[in-house]
Amino acid sequence: MSKYIIQPRENGLESVAGFFCDAVNVGMRPNTDQGDVAFIRSEVPCDIAAVFTTNRFQAAPIKHFQRYGDDFQTDFVLINAKNANAMTGQKGIEDIDTILSTLQNKLPVTNPVMSSTGVIGYRLPVDKIVTAFDRLDFNACNSDKAARAIMTTDSFKKELAYRVKLPDGSHFNIAAICKGAGMINPAMATMLCFIVTDADIPKADMKSLLHEGTEHSFNRISVDGDTSTNDTVMLLANKQSGVYNKEAFSKVLNTMMFELAMMILRDGEGANKVVAFEVKGAKSNEEARIAATALSNSLLVKTALFGEDPNWGRIASTIGASGVTCDDTTLTIHYDDLLIYSNEYRELDTAREEEAYKIMKQERFTVTCDLGLGEGNYTTYGCDLSYEYVKINAEYRT
Amino acid sequence: MSKYIIQPRENGLESVAGFFCDAVNVGMRPNTDQGDVAFIRSEVPCDIAAVFTTNRFQAAPIKHFQRYGDDFQTDFVLINAKNANAMTGQKGIEDIDTILSTLQNKLPVTNPVMSSTGVIGYRLPVDKIVTAFDRLDFNACNSDKAARAIMTTDSFKKELAYRVKLPDGSHFNIAAICKGAGMINPAMATMLCFIVTDADIPKADMKSLLHEGTEHSFNRISVDGDTSTNDTVMLLANKQSGVYNKEAFSKVLNTMMFELAMMILRDGEGANKVVAFEVKGAKSNEEARIAATALSNSLLVKTALFGEDPNWGRIASTIGASGVTCDDTTLTIHYDDLLIYSNEYRELDTAREEEAYKIMKQERFTVTCDLGLGEGNYTTYGCDLSYEYVKINAEYRT
Repeated sequence: MSKYIIQPRENGLESVAGFFCDAVNVGMRPNTDQGDVAFIRSEVPCDIAAVFTTNRFQAAPIKHFQRYGDDFQTDFVLINAKNANAMTGQKGIEDIDTILSTLQNKLPVTNPVMSSTGVIGYRLPVDKIVTAFDRLDFNACNSDKAARAIMTTDSFKKELAYRVKLPDGSHFNIAAICKGAGMINPAMATMLCFIVTDADIPKADMKSLLHEGTEHSFNRISVDGDTSTNDTVMLLANKQSGVYNKEAFSKVLNTMMFELAMMILRDGEGANKVVAFEVKGAKSNEEARIAATALSNSLLVKTALFGEDPNWGRIASTIGASGVTCDDTTLTIHYDDLLIYSNEYRELDTAREEEAYKIMKQERFTVTCDLGLGEGNYTTYGCDLSYEYVKINAEYRT
Repeated sequence: MSKYIIQPRENGLESVAGFFCDAVNVGMRPNTDQGDVAFIRSEVPCDIAAVFTTNRFQAAPIKHFQRYGDDFQTDFVLINAKNANAMTGQKGIEDIDTILSTLQNKLPVTNPVMSSTGVIGYRLPVDKIVTAFDRLDFNACNSDKAARAIMTTDSFKKELAYRVKLPDGSHFNIAAICKGAGMINPAMATMLCFIVTDADIPKADMKSLLHEGTEHSFNRISVDGDTSTNDTVMLLANKQSGVYNKEAFSKVLNTMMFELAMMILRDGEGANKVVAFEVKGAKSNEEARIAATALSNSLLVKTALFGEDPNWGRIASTIGASGVTCDDTTLTIHYDDLLIYSNEYRELDTAREEEAYKIMKQERFTVTCDLGLGEGNYTTYGCDLSYEYVKINAEYRT
């Protein structure tokens, strides 16, 4: 008997009362009415938790955010696409101050923060961005527009919402918009994710559960092994429902973040399939993590996936190259449930190769590598590497 | 005044007296008369030094080699392409024993060793390979044929020879054949290199100089960041010249290995240009190595090189993501001699962008990143990532 019920909801951020959002195009994204500046606002100041990129060159909006210290409340997040405001130095932070103080003149806000994504190394077009404040509807809740405005190379918007019903009939809501397609690495990359909730969650839980959720979702996916200067996952809690249950909140947060991570991976630049790399039987969880991360990052594995070639040799070689303890007599490799390598079964016969080929044709499948040496396990999620990836990234700036 | 003279020589292994080589096609490489089995033989037993892959799944020929222990002499190296004899377990080693004892019945040899390259996970076709022994000319020196026989996805053969003249008029010779194109990582990958010399080099110098040469050549190049099960660099010395000078030998060995590494990189699968990534001003040489290696491995940097996009943001972001100590106010980035980023100069103006674009159009250029924090430096060499790379690796086995 379930202690709580998690119900998917429509309409993204609109599902959580007390939050507003909207987007407009100020001219950074040319020849479209898709927005390039968006906001998320709360009626009341919210507790906030955030996880940022581990890149040493954190972008200006992250440095600006951190100026508020560890413990502050905010009711306003401004987001722009097309320009990362990264590697812009002190001037980049001053630009944010200029933009946010212009905002303050239009709308009284508490500790506003900013988040940016796009090309590195260019100052924000401050004059353009502030024109948004005359055109944004601060009392609207256009989740679809906001979700689309934060996209860069994304081919579809990423938006989810859930309601959690507790046994006593009470409920709370949680919703998110997210962007990310290329550069997704097992260290959270080139992604932004904004989560809002009306759950009455304590600040300490916000931090720990957000980190835990990130570790089980965005930190386990890889599109190309690169990380960016701007990666941000934010959780805003207005506490307005007055309802909270830690187990249920943790469950729904993890579910939502994992689903968003899978959406990012499916939208991996030029990617056609999503593959789970499950490493088990490692000497330790850390060794399992190293091997699983190497698999989801390997160019040779990724191109073999694209070619739908059941070449387990590249899987084995990548594990061996990752430096973890391994032994070819205890190793087994499965594609889904099909045994593809073991000490007794080292060569693919035609029947099994045909079977493997069918599995690889699927949009999703699992590669399981059991090192047969211990109890360590870890799973990462990767995608194939196609011509399209090269095209997108060779031509990105133009 | 130079103490010795290094002269390039023609004809590869033929330049070193006392060595023989030849190759034939036994049917592993279909529809061509390019060889797939080759040998290198010496009139007298040679001292041998070798550097092998750091991959934990070392191929059968490497395990077989290591059975001879640390100190042995050999006069025969058998090499095959198209099949790596990797992940083949005990049977893979037994196959080598079968092949080499068949050889012994045709030709008395001392401690013969084997080296293989090709697809992982298939038993060697022993019956085919032994047919070579009736057709190979053990007294020939067909360096060109041997160099071509060891190629896999290589588009050109890799063969070099030098004569070193000492001030007293004496000389020694050194020559090599080498293969490698894809999967070249800063940990020596999917390459084989066989170096022969008549220098009267002590065994201890053979080991130390070969390791040093590998560190400055094959360990600094990256095509796709992957490493393989079979990588081998071997040095065979027949001592027949009676001549040796450590400084001169070290110099010519390093020169030759570096040139071979650059040939591999130029032949990187689908690659169009070779780029040196020089990181200096790092806190330590190790931090410089980490950052330089991250640059030559980054998919985003590689695709930007292919797109000839002077997007220094990806360079900076990759350094930041590598985890080394860095600071955007002390960092400078140059493409060749062109300053492309500094604290004072963060945005590319059009004139400089045009200049950068011209530099990137070259087949070779240098990206120099000065972290401005210390004395650590390290240089790696990488290539661009093209559609062709994906095509080659998606279709490799077929």
